Amino acid sequence: MKLAELGEFGLIKRIAENIDDTLLQNSIGIGDDCAVIQKNEKESYLITTDMLIEDIHFLKKHIKAEELGNKALAVNLSDVAAMGGKPHWIFLSLALPAKTKIAWTDRFFKGFLELAEMSGCLLLGGDTTHSKKNIIINVVVIGEIETEKIKFRNKAKIGDVICTTDLVGNSGCGLKLLLENKFDPTIQAHRSMLQAHHLPKANLQEGSWLADFPEVHAMIDISDGVDSDVLQIIKNSQVGAQLFLEKLPLASQMKKIAEKFNWNVEELAISSGEDYCLIVTIAPSAFPDIAKKFQKHFGRNLNFIGKITDSKKLEVIEKGKKIDLIQKGYDHFRSEEK
Amino acid sequence: MKLAELGEFGLIKRIAENIDDTLLQNSIGIGDDCAVIQKNEKESYLITTDMLIEDIHFLKKHIKAEELGNKALAVNLSDVAAMGGKPHWIFLSLALPAKTKIAWTDRFFKGFLELAEMSGCLLLGGDTTHSKKNIIINVVVIGEIETEKIKFRNKAKIGDVICTTDLVGNSGCGLKLLLENKFDPTIQAHRSMLQAHHLPKANLQEGSWLADFPEVHAMIDISDGVDSDVLQIIKNSQVGAQLFLEKLPLASQMKKIAEKFNWNVEELAISSGEDYCLIVTIAPSAFPDIAKKFQKHFGRNLNFIGKITDSKKLEVIEKGKKIDLIQKGYDHFRSEEK
Repeated sequence: MKLAELGEFGLIKRIAENIDDTLLQNSIGIGDDCAVIQKNEKESYLITTDMLIEDIHFLKKHIKAEELGNKALAVNLSDVAAMGGKPHWIFLSLALPAKTKIAWTDRFFKGFLELAEMSGCLLLGGDTTHSKKNIIINVVVIGEIETEKIKFRNKAKIGDVICTTDLVGNSGCGLKLLLENKFDPTIQAHRSMLQAHHLPKANLQEGSWLADFPEVHAMIDISDGVDSDVLQIIKNSQVGAQLFLEKLPLASQMKKIAEKFNWNVEELAISSGEDYCLIVTIAPSAFPDIAKKFQKHFGRNLNFIGKITDSKKLEVIEKGKKIDLIQKGYDHFRSEEK
Repeated sequence: MKLAELGEFGLIKRIAENIDDTLLQNSIGIGDDCAVIQKNEKESYLITTDMLIEDIHFLKKHIKAEELGNKALAVNLSDVAAMGGKPHWIFLSLALPAKTKIAWTDRFFKGFLELAEMSGCLLLGGDTTHSKKNIIINVVVIGEIETEKIKFRNKAKIGDVICTTDLVGNSGCGLKLLLENKFDPTIQAHRSMLQAHHLPKANLQEGSWLADFPEVHAMIDISDGVDSDVLQIIKNSQVGAQLFLEKLPLASQMKKIAEKFNWNVEELAISSGEDYCLIVTIAPSAFPDIAKKFQKHFGRNLNFIGKITDSKKLEVIEKGKKIDLIQKGYDHFRSEEK
């Protein structure tokens, strides 16, 4: 059997089965956005890592060096945000072809270190090496949090409201503009979509703020897509979910672009991923109050998009009717390159 | 300017200059085998990361999957050993081409997880993705140590004895057998050299044991070569060193192979690297006692190879005379692939 048949989630499951989890004293391993290591009686570390490879995860000709530096860090910060933590330390492994221009690496580090500083993080170490052809970036972020505040993806409860901390689909729209050669840099709305794809914002403040509420039960960041990431919540929490397609919070610019090119706007919003805002499930009784406070604090909505059910499956509802969506996660081994 | 001209050490220096180290509260960043994060008043974490890329750091046709899994972890454990710590947690990012056979990944994980278990470590998380052509492996190891016992590379003192915790040159000899197509699997000595290259042993017990002695001043693991790694110690400690070529501890098998193929045995021993034993500098008054105890505890010698001087340079001595060696470090950006 080849890896293409097993897929990424299959491989992770296969690895996890070989790990003796009786050894997991004071730590939590594979299965959430971050691993958890207990620091002391009250606090824990959150640790996450992501690898980005040229021509798989990004195209050098499309993304500026500063943007790539920013994004390589942002996607990891987003994992810390999704557990409610505050990031502190960063480790960067970077493999570059010998022909890489120093001006390019300087701009990469400018984007990377500016976001690090803005996020209160310090680059503590890493590895540099050369590669034959492609740029390879591996980032590790270590954060901290009070242990009782950690939010997991497996704690959603039946009846919970599902919401997002920001709009969805802009990043996917930006990518689609690029991949279909429709990106026009003279159009502000196009630039805005591309920026959502190339300069995603980790919801660190939002994650940390939401972690203070015990009524916030589960959190995850949107990397693979609303559908895939809600699937992760319901699989891990052993519950079901209904998502209301009309409720997905969309930018009017994005809708206009999708309409113009005859793209399925709902599919773009629910499946394209890389939004890097958070999906949150909240006890229904607490939702109105938390949403109101969120609005006041962040100046934007905590967007209701669905609810947790006992069905043990993901149901997508459009105009009151269930519709069929390809409900499996974006799978890095099976999919075409992004 | 291109990266090839700046080199790896140049790039690291350039990055480090852009980091605001006034932020380094309770932590120590770039510049040693591991970064240090203070855990509490008494203890610290040691964190290290290394990236291995197919066709740059290893050739898939030459190394078995189990060996590669073992080595990818061992080189990181070796960094923890070099600071005196005990490794606890591991994060693995793995990019594999879709055509990779599952049997190969199973054997990779067998080698990886067996060494993890033997070393008292747990794989806590990571990332899996696909790559177009090459296997890419990034490993992070987090260890712990009592803060006052940490050994740095910048604490060597003038007069210190320099020694190694094991033989040197076997790994380089194994690699040379492969690269020059001279490896004969029917010859036990050849297999033994190749094993030193493909299954290096991190000196975890040795590092931790040596860390108990305040008279042990500086430690580093031999990744780049005895010459390059002693250079790291003396540059960082602002001292000099004399290395006595005849004192380098060599396997008789290695000497015989080198003689047979007319290879320069001393050069192989001092420059080839990837030995992954430790170079240690020890106060001269304490050396005899520590060496005796080391012999008793580990059943092999702590090998005297030189001394720390005030010359601020590395001098290699052969039969009482200084000789000229290329004394710059193995530089990943400039060098040909291994």
